Amino acid sequence: MNRFERPALRAMTGYTFGEQPQDGSVIKLNTNENPYAPSPAIAEALAHFDVATLRRYPSPFAQGFREAAAALHGLTADWVMATNGGDELLRLLITTYLEPGQPLATTEPSYSLYPVLAAVQGCPTVTFDLEVDFALPEDLGTRAEAAGAGLFCLVNPHAPTGRLFTEDALERLLSQFSGVVLIDQAYVDFIDEDQKAAALGLIQRHDRVLLLRTLSKGYALAGLRFGYGLAQPSLLEPMLTKTRDSYNVDAIAQALATAALKDQAWARENWAAVRRERDALHTALAARGYEAPRSQTNFLFPTVPSALDAATIKDQLKAAGILVRHFPGTLGQRLRITVGTAEENAALLAALPSAP
Amino acid sequence: MNRFERPALRAMTGYTFGEQPQDGSVIKLNTNENPYAPSPAIAEALAHFDVATLRRYPSPFAQGFREAAAALHGLTADWVMATNGGDELLRLLITTYLEPGQPLATTEPSYSLYPVLAAVQGCPTVTFDLEVDFALPEDLGTRAEAAGAGLFCLVNPHAPTGRLFTEDALERLLSQFSGVVLIDQAYVDFIDEDQKAAALGLIQRHDRVLLLRTLSKGYALAGLRFGYGLAQPSLLEPMLTKTRDSYNVDAIAQALATAALKDQAWARENWAAVRRERDALHTALAARGYEAPRSQTNFLFPTVPSALDAATIKDQLKAAGILVRHFPGTLGQRLRITVGTAEENAALLAALPSAP
Repeated sequence: MNRFERPALRAMTGYTFGEQPQDGSVIKLNTNENPYAPSPAIAEALAHFDVATLRRYPSPFAQGFREAAAALHGLTADWVMATNGGDELLRLLITTYLEPGQPLATTEPSYSLYPVLAAVQGCPTVTFDLEVDFALPEDLGTRAEAAGAGLFCLVNPHAPTGRLFTEDALERLLSQFSGVVLIDQAYVDFIDEDQKAAALGLIQRHDRVLLLRTLSKGYALAGLRFGYGLAQPSLLEPMLTKTRDSYNVDAIAQALATAALKDQAWARENWAAVRRERDALHTALAARGYEAPRSQTNFLFPTVPSALDAATIKDQLKAAGILVRHFPGTLGQRLRITVGTAEENAALLAALPSAP
Repeated sequence: MNRFERPALRAMTGYTFGEQPQDGSVIKLNTNENPYAPSPAIAEALAHFDVATLRRYPSPFAQGFREAAAALHGLTADWVMATNGGDELLRLLITTYLEPGQPLATTEPSYSLYPVLAAVQGCPTVTFDLEVDFALPEDLGTRAEAAGAGLFCLVNPHAPTGRLFTEDALERLLSQFSGVVLIDQAYVDFIDEDQKAAALGLIQRHDRVLLLRTLSKGYALAGLRFGYGLAQPSLLEPMLTKTRDSYNVDAIAQALATAALKDQAWARENWAAVRRERDALHTALAARGYEAPRSQTNFLFPTVPSALDAATIKDQLKAAGILVRHFPGTLGQRLRITVGTAEENAALLAALPSAP
């Protein structure tokens, strides 16, 4: 803190991110990273990258990447916007579409970065509890509209619960709420094949819906910081030309992200492997008394047995070299556990105390 | 434009960046890129980068880079902050220290991004003309203080004039102005050895001064998007913990930027080569009637001979495959020309029309 900081910032607390030990020795199941190494196409793209070109500015709009993403999703490049991680897209959405003082709406629980970004913009956050089974309340959009929210941020599949909301539920929200709606699809790649709801129809039908994608999870590239938005060009345009830093994604990241998207064979195999491990871990956790809702993501959100304390277990696991996430508060009896490799999940299960 | 965009954005125009053709065939003297390829240490660091680590989030504060920069500048790591290009640091400074409605102060001319970033934050920009010889007016700080500015942004060495302001002139500004002062040192590496004024003393003496550095120019890494700030920890702290995206620089960029800073032998040789070409180009331009102020950067800002028109010359050069920058307005009789290689500068001189 210092005497020059804006009053709105002085009054707020920054985002608390999960621990990121850089030594590689821990079993890291706390920030939903992919358990497997990225596609071999990444190493190949890196080996072929011409370092001499780094003296030049990168493509300002990441045109090569936009074209690859457009081809993947059956869109044109002007429906795509590349960002320095998904977090940059969230920030841009708020600085572009939320007037200082105007509320941001989201669910409780939700991604805890939303209220932080809103506070930086001088905006309050209004939250609406999910149902007991973590479903969307039927009148969610009506209540957000009544609260005067300008932007609704919804994670789908949802974090930290892992639940997938249907396209019908999203359409209902849109019929009740007239502002801009972000569907944060950070975990979309892990949805079961038979439940794939890419929500691309939503952006075709609504010029105020933005889909957020990231390469951090589904492409095992959290270290690369690469996300993208899908929306009608009119919604992307002010972010592309006004609020975004002109060269927001670097040349190497552009090349590697493009290579990653183009290797869909690797991607599909990776997602299937994560789903297999997720479902096996779900079953094994339940057998130990840790019941989790059905997850369509790469993490599980179990309740610890009632005789045990979640915060204590988190600390015990950490002492055993295993990191998981714990959110104090009304969901304080739960742990958010990223799906690891078979070996990592076995180590977790072995270290997890059973109900007495 | 769309109906959801904030009114303040609807009223503004985005930043106009120089052309960035990606085909490599043009002689590109329009955006002040380094004419030489980056240090061989970059290729080496890239070859040794372990792609498997990309599945993990990067070091959130770029700790390795901070330590390398601190060692280089004789500081500790908490005086250093890494950013996704220098532009990100400018944005963070404004969102952290400028209340919506409060003016940003700068000189005229200056880096044209400042007013754009201020407008996004809902802040006006007040500008103060440089003297006829591009010196700082003696009462610059007094006038900025009277205008109620919260932040003064000063490029030094100055762009687009190339001129270096003395540390005494900066201290005078600080004695007259009580807000936060950014010294944008994007071109600091090209200052003549006998005039090196790194301004590190300013941040030792003032807790409200931030120095901006970039690897884009002096380290030939514009494509990598890596900048950094140097300031007292109290000034950096809210940007590090509140307004910054949590993982703002990716893992590869961190590794390469660290390698670049550590190869000071390459850097010193590069800067000396750029200075030699700059001074040779300065002389050759003058011989053709294009008089430029003495430059302490990697570009020149000559006035075209009075019988000629600068905008026309810019177009003629472009037709000949040579890009330079032209700023319409009161400085419309000038061109901003980046110092190229000896061959590029010779091609420019051959294509440049002489006074009739």
